[in-house]
Amino acid sequence: MKLDPYWVTGFVDGEGTFYVGINSQPSMKTGFQVLPEFRIVQHERDIQLLYALKEFFNAGVVRVNHGDRYELRIRNLSVLKETVIPFFEKYPLHTKKSIDFIKFRKIILKMINQEHLTKEGIVRIIEIASQMNRADKPKAQEIKKDLQMDKDNVHACEKS
Amino acid sequence: MKLDPYWVTGFVDGEGTFYVGINSQPSMKTGFQVLPEFRIVQHERDIQLLYALKEFFNAGVVRVNHGDRYELRIRNLSVLKETVIPFFEKYPLHTKKSIDFIKFRKIILKMINQEHLTKEGIVRIIEIASQMNRADKPKAQEIKKDLQMDKDNVHACEKS
Repeated sequence: MKLDPYWVTGFVDGEGTFYVGINSQPSMKTGFQVLPEFRIVQHERDIQLLYALKEFFNAGVVRVNHGDRYELRIRNLSVLKETVIPFFEKYPLHTKKSIDFIKFRKIILKMINQEHLTKEGIVRIIEIASQMNRADKPKAQEIKKDLQMDKDNVHACEKS
Repeated sequence: MKLDPYWVTGFVDGEGTFYVGINSQPSMKTGFQVLPEFRIVQHERDIQLLYALKEFFNAGVVRVNHGDRYELRIRNLSVLKETVIPFFEKYPLHTKKSIDFIKFRKIILKMINQEHLTKEGIVRIIEIASQMNRADKPKAQEIKKDLQMDKDNVHACEKS
């Protein structure tokens, strides 16, 4: 199936998600792992379309999302930067999802710059991600508070 | 906002619905009214896109769907035949919604031929509509049974 790029952007305006997961990860210096992903979810009856989209982007995996729903998921940072972001810059989204895309791009670029590996960077990333209108990630304020407390502890130790 | 036709078909693959409502209407000869409609539903934050789609098709009304959701709805039979159907013939849907579209088109053409005004015609239309995977319309078997009973009554009267 040959997909027109404008069809792809229209379909993503309807069915796509730009998502940034923030997971608690005590083994990391910042305490958090940042997991951006672009995904498109479909009922299994349209799974062939997910494979066509995978071919279109030449990236990602098709996997179960939930129950009888499947998703194409792209997580690879350099693919997101080199393929996904330039695509939606060339064929812009028309829904308010375009605002999520801008925030998603901002976070990807920060990650490329390794900013997610510093506490200041991750606070900023969590702030941006928290404005992406996602229900399924930790509350930014709580994480910020944790990080702030942690930072205060470090300062306290330095002073003593 | 200028919409590309492929974007429109991609967006409709995600967010559009081809729907045929069958309403009990005792005042009509067949006892039923057939109401085909093409609609696109969006959260109110993207209402401007519904107006852009209205302009694109040069038809329809933007109205409340439910709660904070709005819809562009096109019901006019000649607009469906002259504008909507030719559009999706030229820019085909890629999801299984394309099967609904074929059934929708079949019903529209039957209506243009006035077939919905005969009992045989409406039985066939209800059969097709019942395969359109809609939850919110009466069950075809029940309506068929009603119509059959009604037909039997007519025959009984003719015989007496």
